[in-house]
Amino acid sequence: MAANEDLPGWKDKILFTPGPLTTSRTVKQAMLRDLGSRDTEFIQIVRDIRNRLLRIAGVTAETHAAVLMQGSGTFGLEAVVSSTVPPGEKILVAVNGAYGRRLLQMAAIHRIEATAVHAPENQRIDPAEIADRLQRDPSVTHVWACHCETTSGILNPIRELGAVVRRAGRILCVDAMSTFGAVPVHLEECGIDYLVSSANKCIEGVPGFSFVLARRTRLLATEGVARTLSLDLLAQYRGLEEDGQFRFTPPTHALLAFRQALLELDAEGGVPARAERYRRNQETLVQGMRALGFREYLRPEDQGSIITSFYYPSDPHFLFEPFYRRLNSKQFVIYPGKVGTADCFRIGTIGRIFPSDVEDLLAAIRQVLADMKIAVPAAGVREDAPCVSSMNADTPEG
Amino acid sequence: MAANEDLPGWKDKILFTPGPLTTSRTVKQAMLRDLGSRDTEFIQIVRDIRNRLLRIAGVTAETHAAVLMQGSGTFGLEAVVSSTVPPGEKILVAVNGAYGRRLLQMAAIHRIEATAVHAPENQRIDPAEIADRLQRDPSVTHVWACHCETTSGILNPIRELGAVVRRAGRILCVDAMSTFGAVPVHLEECGIDYLVSSANKCIEGVPGFSFVLARRTRLLATEGVARTLSLDLLAQYRGLEEDGQFRFTPPTHALLAFRQALLELDAEGGVPARAERYRRNQETLVQGMRALGFREYLRPEDQGSIITSFYYPSDPHFLFEPFYRRLNSKQFVIYPGKVGTADCFRIGTIGRIFPSDVEDLLAAIRQVLADMKIAVPAAGVREDAPCVSSMNADTPEG
Repeated sequence: MAANEDLPGWKDKILFTPGPLTTSRTVKQAMLRDLGSRDTEFIQIVRDIRNRLLRIAGVTAETHAAVLMQGSGTFGLEAVVSSTVPPGEKILVAVNGAYGRRLLQMAAIHRIEATAVHAPENQRIDPAEIADRLQRDPSVTHVWACHCETTSGILNPIRELGAVVRRAGRILCVDAMSTFGAVPVHLEECGIDYLVSSANKCIEGVPGFSFVLARRTRLLATEGVARTLSLDLLAQYRGLEEDGQFRFTPPTHALLAFRQALLELDAEGGVPARAERYRRNQETLVQGMRALGFREYLRPEDQGSIITSFYYPSDPHFLFEPFYRRLNSKQFVIYPGKVGTADCFRIGTIGRIFPSDVEDLLAAIRQVLADMKIAVPAAGVREDAPCVSSMNADTPEG
Repeated sequence: MAANEDLPGWKDKILFTPGPLTTSRTVKQAMLRDLGSRDTEFIQIVRDIRNRLLRIAGVTAETHAAVLMQGSGTFGLEAVVSSTVPPGEKILVAVNGAYGRRLLQMAAIHRIEATAVHAPENQRIDPAEIADRLQRDPSVTHVWACHCETTSGILNPIRELGAVVRRAGRILCVDAMSTFGAVPVHLEECGIDYLVSSANKCIEGVPGFSFVLARRTRLLATEGVARTLSLDLLAQYRGLEEDGQFRFTPPTHALLAFRQALLELDAEGGVPARAERYRRNQETLVQGMRALGFREYLRPEDQGSIITSFYYPSDPHFLFEPFYRRLNSKQFVIYPGKVGTADCFRIGTIGRIFPSDVEDLLAAIRQVLADMKIAVPAAGVREDAPCVSSMNADTPEG
């Protein structure tokens, strides 16, 4: 089974990116309707979506709330940052990539006091360091961490961070943009107070809104904190609770697609099955890329199944732009790198793609390398080589 | 030709609302693709959309910029409110409905000084009153007005307001949410500096983003003013200009639908033809509703073709909820009223609907009235009655 094979007469490029992703034909077909945003059927769909999101996170509406927010994932993050930290309170951000830095940027623009624990982009956040900082800085009230830092593809130890933050009696907010639905997360067990993710990631919907899963008592304690109208998290929650409606026009079609995507997640076997498919995608990718001479930026034990950063080959014929363009013309979309200190590109392994699609991509990469006159190791030779090479110098930021 | 008649085996309810609206099958079918948000094809589509929007407003990229913003129309409005008024400057809002009041609410949450000129909800904003206020209050730098106040359906005199604001040397910002594409507006001729509208209104796309048309010199002078990250108008503009990409994940599918909707607007004959179709929709509606004994809230000379408020009938058998539900079960979605001081409901006449759809709605209303045992005038009797009746007392707010 391969992505898009069910599209007669149509073959879109396959998206090996962190999103928007390749989605199923049936998810897109769910958008062939116009529903009124105040109509009973739509309200029922929104309610179903909100309940299903809570179930995926292992909680119920008794203790938690799912708040849908128009806009991209960043809008959902900014809704939480700007709506939940009262004046005088302080955020600690665990930073090991661009998305952690973006959270600091949000705090700054809203004049929310913030501090950071930095780790190199190829190293996980160390929970002990967070614990230490929380002990030394009692003014910190909220801790933010990215579950998967999409900058590199690294998976931060969210459960251990949760334990540390809970012991210290602080509030934990998690950017789970690219993990929710693909990495099992139980909000209570992980000690997460606010989790943010987006429609067009591992639930495999289309872009148009993000969602926040919040511990209800925390959320209800944020009265009067919001610093914007559109991104007011508590007001959005109250609107959805009171009559099931959004305060402002919702992306009705994206929500129809998302409901279908949630049904298809269930049909696949839920988060464990999806996690396994993505694991096989990523395993297929890494084995194939190593065979082609590529090396990963991260150590395997830090690497998630979401997106993988590969060093540029040291071959002087390699230039990313033509490499990207040639793959693109073969209908495969990969992603530029974002790591600050190493020349990398990225390949995502999420969305409605399967190991066979990854194999197609690998065959295309082999062909493009040949066309670009870039040396490829003889088949099989380097499959068992160490996974982090010294192809490129890597001096991660401090 | 009637809405949805091209949907074999499928008949969605027809939406007589202010949006989301009934859209064409082909607009929705344009969403059956997954495009990468950084892919050349998508970037080209975004560029085309931005240029077409400027053309509709009678301007070009030499003097103006089209900035697309994720989220609903409110997000676009808040982007302009929060990104363009530096500390120390002051907004004057022309208020004759809920959407004017919402602009004041936005200013308040961002601690932007604001004042208002209020008019009753059934009266247009008087340009002379704005001129007078601008003369008396030199601290006002920005004037906001709603083109069509969807609260009632009233059309404010935007060209006259523009002349007044321009003469006074202030900046004019227009909420053209429900008029853009349906009422010809030339930015220069109307003296508009910022115009905001949304994808799911009269261009007949699906919801997911709004757009701001801005005079470039004004926009470029707002460096450092933005009060949020997500809704930072200048940063969004720069992102779109630099590499054609959104800063944060765009609603790719809604944008594909919108491009198709723009092509279909052209095919229909552009804004004049669409304005004429909506005019005929609204004329059909009002004539039919009068024949059924209903009376409009607004005087005809103040009424736009977008949405019409009707007084509840005085018949004691009339209750809005069952009236709405019965129409809904017949596949027609109307809209509750929003006028503060009169019992009204609203019927929209925009979207992919035609006079024949309006006639179907009228037949359904006649049937529902009969089912509810509400007296209907004998056919033809009241067609020429005065258009504002005294069925319900109307004491508009001050």
